[in-house]
Amino acid sequence: MINVSIIGLGLIGGSIAKDLITQLNINVIGVDNNKAHCKLAQELKLVNEVQPLSIAIQKSDFIIIAIPVDAIEDLLPSILDPINNEQIVIDVGSTKTAICKAVENHPNRKRFVAAHPLAGTEFSGPEAALTGLFRGNKCIICDQEQSSEDAVESTAKLFNSIGMEMHYQSSVSHDKHLAYVSHLSHITSFTLSLTVQDIMKDESQILNLASTGFASTVRLAKSSPQTWRPIFSKNKQHLSLAIDEYIRHLETFKQSLETDNEGKSEELMTQANKIKTLL
Amino acid sequence: MINVSIIGLGLIGGSIAKDLITQLNINVIGVDNNKAHCKLAQELKLVNEVQPLSIAIQKSDFIIIAIPVDAIEDLLPSILDPINNEQIVIDVGSTKTAICKAVENHPNRKRFVAAHPLAGTEFSGPEAALTGLFRGNKCIICDQEQSSEDAVESTAKLFNSIGMEMHYQSSVSHDKHLAYVSHLSHITSFTLSLTVQDIMKDESQILNLASTGFASTVRLAKSSPQTWRPIFSKNKQHLSLAIDEYIRHLETFKQSLETDNEGKSEELMTQANKIKTLL
Repeated sequence: MINVSIIGLGLIGGSIAKDLITQLNINVIGVDNNKAHCKLAQELKLVNEVQPLSIAIQKSDFIIIAIPVDAIEDLLPSILDPINNEQIVIDVGSTKTAICKAVENHPNRKRFVAAHPLAGTEFSGPEAALTGLFRGNKCIICDQEQSSEDAVESTAKLFNSIGMEMHYQSSVSHDKHLAYVSHLSHITSFTLSLTVQDIMKDESQILNLASTGFASTVRLAKSSPQTWRPIFSKNKQHLSLAIDEYIRHLETFKQSLETDNEGKSEELMTQANKIKTLL
Repeated sequence: MINVSIIGLGLIGGSIAKDLITQLNINVIGVDNNKAHCKLAQELKLVNEVQPLSIAIQKSDFIIIAIPVDAIEDLLPSILDPINNEQIVIDVGSTKTAICKAVENHPNRKRFVAAHPLAGTEFSGPEAALTGLFRGNKCIICDQEQSSEDAVESTAKLFNSIGMEMHYQSSVSHDKHLAYVSHLSHITSFTLSLTVQDIMKDESQILNLASTGFASTVRLAKSSPQTWRPIFSKNKQHLSLAIDEYIRHLETFKQSLETDNEGKSEELMTQANKIKTLL
């Protein structure tokens, strides 16, 4: 029997738990500071048992940390402290540089695997856990050369078993890329929601005219501030640059409209259309 | 037998045709400058027949105009010129003020109904036509007091038959609202695509890390420039203001990140989250 502890029973931790628990030889141990989440995770049968952190660490072959990225950074060294040379600690946070930096000189660094499953929804908490959330989706392992080969291989095997495809990248490159293809999307969506709510003060009926296009672009604005505040904060250098570039493109677009430069605005849209073939 | 002409056999015209043609007592006549679209519409059985515009007008009880909004504005007066007091002309463009203005003094203005079905996808052309696209979606009729009561009622009945719910609003208020809940969404999505493509010059593998969140926010960037350029252009006063307000919110968000004002950024996200209960 393999024991897997999952620290943080929210959307990501809960979904990993939900898929792992169906596998015959895995015992899933849930850990969460939030007592209501522990209770709910048991009721929803996401976990086989709930334990305090210290007991969970002792019992586990794998310890998966699925809490906000600032909390991962704070907690990770103390989780690595007591583990032995067979145990594996994995984090599944959305930013990786600061987390890797926090343990770069830790004596047990080689037992740690920095991972990021590229999957999620705009919902949060144990009740947001979904079966098959990771199936067919990528998981990025960062700075793999800092981890023992066996730890990386076992992590890949565990995550393969719930459908993830493993990819490998440096933590710095990962964070830069994610600033554009994930964090910026969340910022633009949060901002769209704020802009529309602002105009609602004068035009209270405005959302009556919202259609599926608006729903799609504003969906990520429903995401958890507790999850995303620290992600934005930990990746603020790259993200700030990405926002600047976005604003620059937006100003160009706006200018083409205001000056009736229809050739230019059509050119911009035709260029934007290329995302069809790129995605 | 009711004869309905549809001018413009793209996503919207084609989808209206596709739903109407299944109704027993309706003959759907297709009209399109693009010969390939006419041929495709017949192959896809979107229409019963294809006719030149003048013949289609003569034969029809309803004439539905589903072409880009600048072309509607240009064509509409000449379509209203020859019609009699039983015929009804409907446009389904996404902006309404300029179109209504173009015919405000036309002797046959009362036979015209300015409509906007709030439905669509990011695809275009006859092959993008979808069965049931309008089912359960709203259709806004603008400046209804300028149309004959019977024309409004018959339009509502026709559109109800393919599942639209009718709502009524002034063209000016419609355009202002749509600037925020539709046109701005398209602008932010086009801009996201441009920003990410720009960074791809240096980071060619960046889209490997794109997930469902990015796909959702960038979806509208696949939309047709031929459709959207004139929509943006016709609504540029409202849209330009909406973009300014969006940039102002984005700058506030960015500043909260850069100054590590986590209380402020969490407050902004919590406010943005309210879209959950509003939508």
